[in-house]
Amino acid sequence: MSSILDSKPNDLREGEVVIALPDHSDASVYFIGRIRTPWKTRKDCPKNARAARETGAVCTLELDPRFAAGLLDIERCSHLVVLYWMDKARRDLVVQVPGHLGKGRGTFALRSPVRPNPIAMSVVKLVKVDGTKLEVIALDCIDGTPLLDIKPYYASTDSIPDAMTGA
Amino acid sequence: MSSILDSKPNDLREGEVVIALPDHSDASVYFIGRIRTPWKTRKDCPKNARAARETGAVCTLELDPRFAAGLLDIERCSHLVVLYWMDKARRDLVVQVPGHLGKGRGTFALRSPVRPNPIAMSVVKLVKVDGTKLEVIALDCIDGTPLLDIKPYYASTDSIPDAMTGA
Repeated sequence: MSSILDSKPNDLREGEVVIALPDHSDASVYFIGRIRTPWKTRKDCPKNARAARETGAVCTLELDPRFAAGLLDIERCSHLVVLYWMDKARRDLVVQVPGHLGKGRGTFALRSPVRPNPIAMSVVKLVKVDGTKLEVIALDCIDGTPLLDIKPYYASTDSIPDAMTGA
Repeated sequence: MSSILDSKPNDLREGEVVIALPDHSDASVYFIGRIRTPWKTRKDCPKNARAARETGAVCTLELDPRFAAGLLDIERCSHLVVLYWMDKARRDLVVQVPGHLGKGRGTFALRSPVRPNPIAMSVVKLVKVDGTKLEVIALDCIDGTPLLDIKPYYASTDSIPDAMTGA
């Protein structure tokens, strides 16, 4: 099954735009753990975060024990912001043609993992804390995806129920 | 004025916990632009995202022209998720003692810029698109902060109005 994630420079879709990335990077990240999900391959994954939530699947954030103390008080949060690294995604596409759209859209107007910095952001419900393992609902990424950060979700600033995207 | 951001290893607050970071990083990021805000120093910044929104201040995401095509269709989004790099923050504190709290809390239960990967996430209202400059309300970071990513905000998955944090 073909996917934009699998595409090589030679099999771009009509309308997609590749750029030259900068010749050096500017900062470095640590993988602070791994995300365990039921999805072992990309084609097993739910299509998006909404589909993931609808499955009700429980995923696990496995934090490197080095950072264990960072979880103090985490159980006071009903929901978390999770940042993770889409390590299988190419980084040089600025216009993509999602299959469901059939035309080009800018990378920054898409939640595709393909982006200059392949950092995904998901809002999850915290179900259980067991040492350095956090059970959450729901993520749509492949099993073993590197974890970058966990943050408390604040409805006061993060929740915009009437946010819209046009047709 | 003293701040956790300014603290050196020798002036930790009572109860704060420092760890040894991993001896190597795992991946690299590009700064894709800069964030322009009215706040030139750390002590000028609003205390948090809610305070920033209340100021009504318009900030500007200045995207490196290299990535300009990535903005195609961005104007269809009323709100955006902005990821940025808190380049002045130390990365080795896993328990912090915020002044307003007066006791230790885990880094992953705080939105402090001090974290292993100092990536901040803010939800902003998109006011105007002018070439590679996006005017948004509101951010609470210092002028010149490096930009990592811009994403569409989806109320369907990103808005949890009844999310809670305990006392």
